Amino acid sequence: MPAPKEFLDFVDSKADFFIQRLSDAVAIKSVSGDPQYRSEVIKMSHWIKDQLSAVGVETELRDLGKQHLEGKELLLPPAVLGRLGNDPKKKTVLVYGHVDVQPANRSDGWDTEPFTLTVKENGQLIGRGSSDDKGPVLGWLNILQYHHEQKKELPVNFRCCFEGMEESGSEGLDELVQRESKPGGWFEGVDCVCISDNYWLNTKTPVLTYGLRGLTYFKLAVEGPAKDLHSGVFGRMVHEPMTDLIALMSKLVDVNGKILVPGVDDMVSAADVQERQLYEKLDYSIADVESAIGSSTTLSEDKVEVLMGRMRLPSLSLHGIEGAFYGAGGKTVIPAKVIGKFSIRLVPPQTPDNINPLVEKYIKEEFAKLGSKNKCTLEYEHGGKPWIGDISHWNYEAAKAATRAVYGREPDMTREGGSIPVTLTFAESLGVNVLLLPMGRGDDGAHSTNEKLDRSNFIEGTKLLGTYLYEIAAVGK
Amino acid sequence: MPAPKEFLDFVDSKADFFIQRLSDAVAIKSVSGDPQYRSEVIKMSHWIKDQLSAVGVETELRDLGKQHLEGKELLLPPAVLGRLGNDPKKKTVLVYGHVDVQPANRSDGWDTEPFTLTVKENGQLIGRGSSDDKGPVLGWLNILQYHHEQKKELPVNFRCCFEGMEESGSEGLDELVQRESKPGGWFEGVDCVCISDNYWLNTKTPVLTYGLRGLTYFKLAVEGPAKDLHSGVFGRMVHEPMTDLIALMSKLVDVNGKILVPGVDDMVSAADVQERQLYEKLDYSIADVESAIGSSTTLSEDKVEVLMGRMRLPSLSLHGIEGAFYGAGGKTVIPAKVIGKFSIRLVPPQTPDNINPLVEKYIKEEFAKLGSKNKCTLEYEHGGKPWIGDISHWNYEAAKAATRAVYGREPDMTREGGSIPVTLTFAESLGVNVLLLPMGRGDDGAHSTNEKLDRSNFIEGTKLLGTYLYEIAAVGK
Repeated sequence: MPAPKEFLDFVDSKADFFIQRLSDAVAIKSVSGDPQYRSEVIKMSHWIKDQLSAVGVETELRDLGKQHLEGKELLLPPAVLGRLGNDPKKKTVLVYGHVDVQPANRSDGWDTEPFTLTVKENGQLIGRGSSDDKGPVLGWLNILQYHHEQKKELPVNFRCCFEGMEESGSEGLDELVQRESKPGGWFEGVDCVCISDNYWLNTKTPVLTYGLRGLTYFKLAVEGPAKDLHSGVFGRMVHEPMTDLIALMSKLVDVNGKILVPGVDDMVSAADVQERQLYEKLDYSIADVESAIGSSTTLSEDKVEVLMGRMRLPSLSLHGIEGAFYGAGGKTVIPAKVIGKFSIRLVPPQTPDNINPLVEKYIKEEFAKLGSKNKCTLEYEHGGKPWIGDISHWNYEAAKAATRAVYGREPDMTREGGSIPVTLTFAESLGVNVLLLPMGRGDDGAHSTNEKLDRSNFIEGTKLLGTYLYEIAAVGK
Repeated sequence: MPAPKEFLDFVDSKADFFIQRLSDAVAIKSVSGDPQYRSEVIKMSHWIKDQLSAVGVETELRDLGKQHLEGKELLLPPAVLGRLGNDPKKKTVLVYGHVDVQPANRSDGWDTEPFTLTVKENGQLIGRGSSDDKGPVLGWLNILQYHHEQKKELPVNFRCCFEGMEESGSEGLDELVQRESKPGGWFEGVDCVCISDNYWLNTKTPVLTYGLRGLTYFKLAVEGPAKDLHSGVFGRMVHEPMTDLIALMSKLVDVNGKILVPGVDDMVSAADVQERQLYEKLDYSIADVESAIGSSTTLSEDKVEVLMGRMRLPSLSLHGIEGAFYGAGGKTVIPAKVIGKFSIRLVPPQTPDNINPLVEKYIKEEFAKLGSKNKCTLEYEHGGKPWIGDISHWNYEAAKAATRAVYGREPDMTREGGSIPVTLTFAESLGVNVLLLPMGRGDDGAHSTNEKLDRSNFIEGTKLLGTYLYEIAAVGK
């Protein structure tokens, strides 16, 4: 059952309105990782609730309690639950998205104000959260608006769960999902889940995603002096925390991406010929990667190796150092306490539970080898297990049919390198199939400067998500 | 010729006034390393000029031109030249100091507002610049005030040169000093130089300092992608600049302070038994170092080793990384361009000219070994040569006599680990003896949080600097 032509026409005719609404959403600085923007994240929760109510959705804000951060207590932004339709003859689809965003400052290298949606002539809609994940969330809103305004019934029973802490570990959400998945809960009767919070591999081929990497994020602290020291006065008198930290961080991953923590890479079996062929078939080239990153710095010239690096291998990235000198110019300081930030993306069978002890043991051993008098502590910051879904399920068949209808082609079936830990929570709590159906392109620059969503992806993506609901209905109850 | 008792009494009676004036000076946020405070540095130059004029000193502001920083052009703060007395029968003493300060934010870990001088019950005067170097500069002013108010002639011809860029490489000053050292220049006829811009070794024993380490400061940049990347999407697909940079930084210095750049440590000969005895005699213990740094993390338990680490060995410190994630919390970014900051403190015969090529060659080789596709560049940021003075000169004898008179003991003769590049410029341009006569204690925390000057050091230090001028006069012309 394809989507009605009236729906597709409506989406085209309302494109400018949809973009204006995306602009309104981007303007709310809902950075969940920075306490100073917490009120904006909360404002964003209310904003999306009001938008849903306006198109006839029954909504509730759910308090998620408080967050303890750097000795302060912060209110968590409430989750927004939505519900429309309760027809036992229809399938019930639960949609998840998030309305918080990564930090963004013009000075990070943005060409335009990050929280002002800039519409470029080439169709790019540039702004923080445009693609990750306000655009997709508004895609669902666009569909609901059509059915509300045109007084059409949705082809499915609709449930939604939009949160404001995804970029900061989805704090509080797991408990909510588990609670609402029980009998009598908001998610009772849900038949499948659809999450639109990732990206195409390239800039032209739609994808369905059936796997995500997990994550385990660490803070590695080395401290010595009670205060920062002058490198002239104390250089070569004391054990410098930065020297120790840099030595430890240099032992985590090699220049080719191999993880040096014993046992981590070993936990993943090598791909056989058949599995390699799956990656060979994907519409993705080294040139696509190079275009997305803007440089010729892939770890390999072999497309299969590079794709497997994202999809089926763990990765370890060094993100930065807290407490050291980070400004421009030259400051001659010996920082007293420095905290290295690094994380490992996990693939089955890796989990924070089986990986963290390996990292802790290794750091402890390597620090002992240094023979420094400084103090070293490793803290697990946040994380989540990896996930793999069943691609033979009707949920995936419906998404494939929708892709064919909107884009006229078969989607690539991919595993994603990123982590959306709640995916696994939905799969495990509800015991139903979960699908990732992305809206944006591989070069959207989520978490980066100049994040964008292409106008065509926003508009055709809205059609895709709507058509997907009609294709689900075609499966019948 | 000891200082007149009236002078010493005057200093005691005016102590509170002197502290209030120091408070006024600290309140001016003359941070030379941060462009946003440049106007405050310029204000500080004018402030000290006005103060000097008020006590009868002939003054001139000297324009030092412009600074090019991060693509912007910034006005350099003017140097302040002062002159009082031109009696051919007297010796002419040139005094140098600086009125700019290191950056300071309450959030760095200060217990009080850094730019509000806080007078503690234990006599500590806490505030940025209290000890480095506004306190000592105001010490000279206190002396001048006595002679002006009491209508007493100074025992010497006085010249001063106060600058506002010391914490940022003394930009523009070398040329000024060289120019003014020539016949007809402001410094014509100068017989010796006194600089009060360092510290006692410990908290109780006055010192004269006859050596300074030089400095060479580097920015090591590694860049790959055109923009920051999401570690989920791109982790293990691309060469990550942070991985390369951390690998390179880990190869610069070992945990025990040994410099790993070939040829750098080798350039300095080992100390023989006699030289070790000089360090053994200094009134300084491991406990003193531990007290100053607030931790038991010295590189050795052997006092001589630790002192030689500061005074006669080069040191390499890793200061931080620009471009990486530095905030609290956990951001899963792959930074596109990261710039490691490190510097080497130099001792004779090391100079930036003979050390920089070794560093450049080593970085080039080590980066090539990594086999990364990223781009690596090394930039020399600023630096200066080390300096050693002749301690048998009458300039040192006068300072020793003044120390005996004010503190009742012989000073320790030390070499300092820090760098005041202009010291060498004065020595070379004027061809006269240069002495460092510090006012503050070893635990003052210059460049650190909670920088302080003890009230007794400010007051007795003023007496010391004044008595030194009288002792110089005693040598006769």
